[in-house]
Amino acid sequence: MAPDAAVNAAPETAGTRRPAPPALLAALGQRLGDRFSTNAAIRQRHGQDESYHPAEPPDGVAFPESAAEVSEIVRLVAAHGSVIIPFGVGTSLEGGIAARQGGIALDMSAMNRITRVSPDDLDATVEAGVTRKQLNTHLRDQGLFFPIDPGADATLGGMAATRASGTNAVRYGTMRDNVLGLTVVLADGEIVTTGGRARKSAAGYDLTRLIIGSEGTLGVICDLTVRLHGIPEAMSAAVAPFPDIGAAIATVIEATQLGVPMARVEFLDEVQIDAVNRYSHLDYPVAPTLFFEFHGSTAGVAEQAEAVGTVAEAQGCRGFRWATRPEDRNRLWEARHNAYYAGLALRPGARGIATDVCVPISRLADCLIATKVDIGETGLLAPIVGHVGDGNFHLVMVIDPDDHEEVARAEALHARMVRRALAMGGTCTGEHGIGYGKRAFLREEHGPGVDVMQRIKTALDPTGVLNPGKVV
Amino acid sequence: MAPDAAVNAAPETAGTRRPAPPALLAALGQRLGDRFSTNAAIRQRHGQDESYHPAEPPDGVAFPESAAEVSEIVRLVAAHGSVIIPFGVGTSLEGGIAARQGGIALDMSAMNRITRVSPDDLDATVEAGVTRKQLNTHLRDQGLFFPIDPGADATLGGMAATRASGTNAVRYGTMRDNVLGLTVVLADGEIVTTGGRARKSAAGYDLTRLIIGSEGTLGVICDLTVRLHGIPEAMSAAVAPFPDIGAAIATVIEATQLGVPMARVEFLDEVQIDAVNRYSHLDYPVAPTLFFEFHGSTAGVAEQAEAVGTVAEAQGCRGFRWATRPEDRNRLWEARHNAYYAGLALRPGARGIATDVCVPISRLADCLIATKVDIGETGLLAPIVGHVGDGNFHLVMVIDPDDHEEVARAEALHARMVRRALAMGGTCTGEHGIGYGKRAFLREEHGPGVDVMQRIKTALDPTGVLNPGKVV
Repeated sequence: MAPDAAVNAAPETAGTRRPAPPALLAALGQRLGDRFSTNAAIRQRHGQDESYHPAEPPDGVAFPESAAEVSEIVRLVAAHGSVIIPFGVGTSLEGGIAARQGGIALDMSAMNRITRVSPDDLDATVEAGVTRKQLNTHLRDQGLFFPIDPGADATLGGMAATRASGTNAVRYGTMRDNVLGLTVVLADGEIVTTGGRARKSAAGYDLTRLIIGSEGTLGVICDLTVRLHGIPEAMSAAVAPFPDIGAAIATVIEATQLGVPMARVEFLDEVQIDAVNRYSHLDYPVAPTLFFEFHGSTAGVAEQAEAVGTVAEAQGCRGFRWATRPEDRNRLWEARHNAYYAGLALRPGARGIATDVCVPISRLADCLIATKVDIGETGLLAPIVGHVGDGNFHLVMVIDPDDHEEVARAEALHARMVRRALAMGGTCTGEHGIGYGKRAFLREEHGPGVDVMQRIKTALDPTGVLNPGKVV
Repeated sequence: MAPDAAVNAAPETAGTRRPAPPALLAALGQRLGDRFSTNAAIRQRHGQDESYHPAEPPDGVAFPESAAEVSEIVRLVAAHGSVIIPFGVGTSLEGGIAARQGGIALDMSAMNRITRVSPDDLDATVEAGVTRKQLNTHLRDQGLFFPIDPGADATLGGMAATRASGTNAVRYGTMRDNVLGLTVVLADGEIVTTGGRARKSAAGYDLTRLIIGSEGTLGVICDLTVRLHGIPEAMSAAVAPFPDIGAAIATVIEATQLGVPMARVEFLDEVQIDAVNRYSHLDYPVAPTLFFEFHGSTAGVAEQAEAVGTVAEAQGCRGFRWATRPEDRNRLWEARHNAYYAGLALRPGARGIATDVCVPISRLADCLIATKVDIGETGLLAPIVGHVGDGNFHLVMVIDPDDHEEVARAEALHARMVRRALAMGGTCTGEHGIGYGKRAFLREEHGPGVDVMQRIKTALDPTGVLNPGKVV
């Protein structure tokens, strides 16, 4: 295949449909009462994620209240030859919750208890339907927080399933690093606990990490034990405009090498900054820009900020702007969190195709610059934002979904961007996951590794009950 | 089984012996020349790790020089119905390298090239036979270091295979957190790369983490891409004696909650401190003691140390002693690294049985105190050292290996200690691994999770070619 051919030219097949037979629907209704629904609107809502991928509704939606109930439902569904699609809040971006073969969506929202918080151990156990904002609201009075922030107020179960990360990952890691153990229901209905509460363990295969990022294809996550962190004594943020992309990324590399433990370092290109200014009524200079956040002691934060400021100025940054007051900091991060909607607002009625690649940071500036040249040649509107401390960035292609030629141009741009990242030693997705949207790219990235994944899938789910058509 | 029964009363079966047939030995000799040996002394050295488990030599030892050669050897061995035991430097502690069924040891020491170092990306790619000291010597001039330090100068491949950690893990994580990708030869000889060079990825199942900690049972690690860190601008260390164990552990918990990023925090009980004093000619107060190390900027390190000093004094620590000069710091950590030998030296001619559990830190003081009561009741000599920032500790039972009654008492103490840790929500091994010494405990810890591990093992190595009799 030519390197600039659109990958989506090779259509993703959903496989054989395995709709829920009437007997299954009846059995679930009898077992769960009003916690099972075949209502069209509810099904529709459970078949559509936040991406541009079309809705594919399940045949029914179950709302379990315990791992034992999840196990029962999985056994029942498997016995009827149908399939299960685990569902958090539906904020996935690669069609992860689409019911490609029909089947039963397992909406985990009723499993939203925070069962234990241990300040001494800096850990907590929560059910899979707890959202990150719910957890952080619960923790605030104890001076604790859970750092993973993918933007959306996703469930912890969904975040673990997709190995989510976001703005804080440069300092605190991703879901991979912040989950100690899981309770999981396997395809045969067995309830298994993985990991535990010890900070580290060398006891056997790392089933916790195998389930994290498996997107509901190996098991249904029912609860999680997660690491917590103390709310830092001090936080400050800064906005730093640069003369060009290279200077911005060089600043990130140098600050990282100096060991500055930046909590957040986000890149916005000049198109995105312009969009943010319009949407959030701000007046940042329209230039390639970094948003920083520093966590630590009062003195430590000042020291970090000074070190980064010095590096940035040496790289040509002019107009470094501080935000130490909480209200200024909140305004800044709210603007960053709204970047996606700010981009869409540039073109009323448009939809966004959000991409996601991650490369070694030494290649990041080259990758960004080549991508911007490419965007220019396509004539598309596509602001860039990036969690650049990790080498991860997104562009949001703001398109008219009814203009097939434009969609095709966007998909081709997307495919070139992914292949550019792979050629630079990067990955096709830093944090959005594979779903069904990136299965072909997974093969390009991992080659025979995908066969190994397939063997694991077959070993744990031989009849393909769990989220079929995703990942492998 | 009664909770205080010795687990080793249930003997571990090695399974069917599958010795290397003469035709295989001949074929390997022909293919590898003097890089294959059946010499008795060489075989003996490759069958004995650093534990008290008896030597079980392989039938031959191969010294491959590339992943392609590893692949060839694995295919050849499998075709002859024999088995492979990957071998780093043989510092495992649970019989991980014992040739329980005979077969061919794969000594990775000739694969010791550092193939790439990228200061901008803070990563490097190394062959599996590179040792941690070799890597750090190579990196020093570039101002970089690799933080994982299990004590022994182990190979990076062996450290990944056993999910090693050690003194720095409280700040820098374990091998799980510091490996980005692997090249692995599977049981069928296929060469697979996992992960990559991106800092994070949501692309498919986490095969990297599946292989890390699998102790050579799922694949032979041939090379690793690892994360590096900048050598901190400043380091300082401190020795803090406490009136009792509770006060020492409370200090660790409080300092952690304050967010002090301690690089090392090691506990030594008064028996171990006495041994260290004698062995390393030091004069530390004979009391439950913490050794700290702080990394950061000059001001940051001073601030960390002051914060911890304040907490320690409030907990009754008297005689907090600083070591800011490199020579004092080195003396301190050399004494800590020699703790095992210092313990053995308390009883000339004795051998050590080193244990390894890890519990939630809120239970650590209780676990240590109960263990010390238990040691007292057995009459055994057993100093305690711990990576207590992670809740991980070891005791070294200093025994006469020819005194079967004493060995039995030590094994019973060990079993009680593991079960106490499990009852407290901990793990049977924080860092030593399962090998064959802890297989029964793995089942007690993970129950049906072990069956899941077994299904993965069967899927990837259906005929049991790779390190049989270990882990699952």
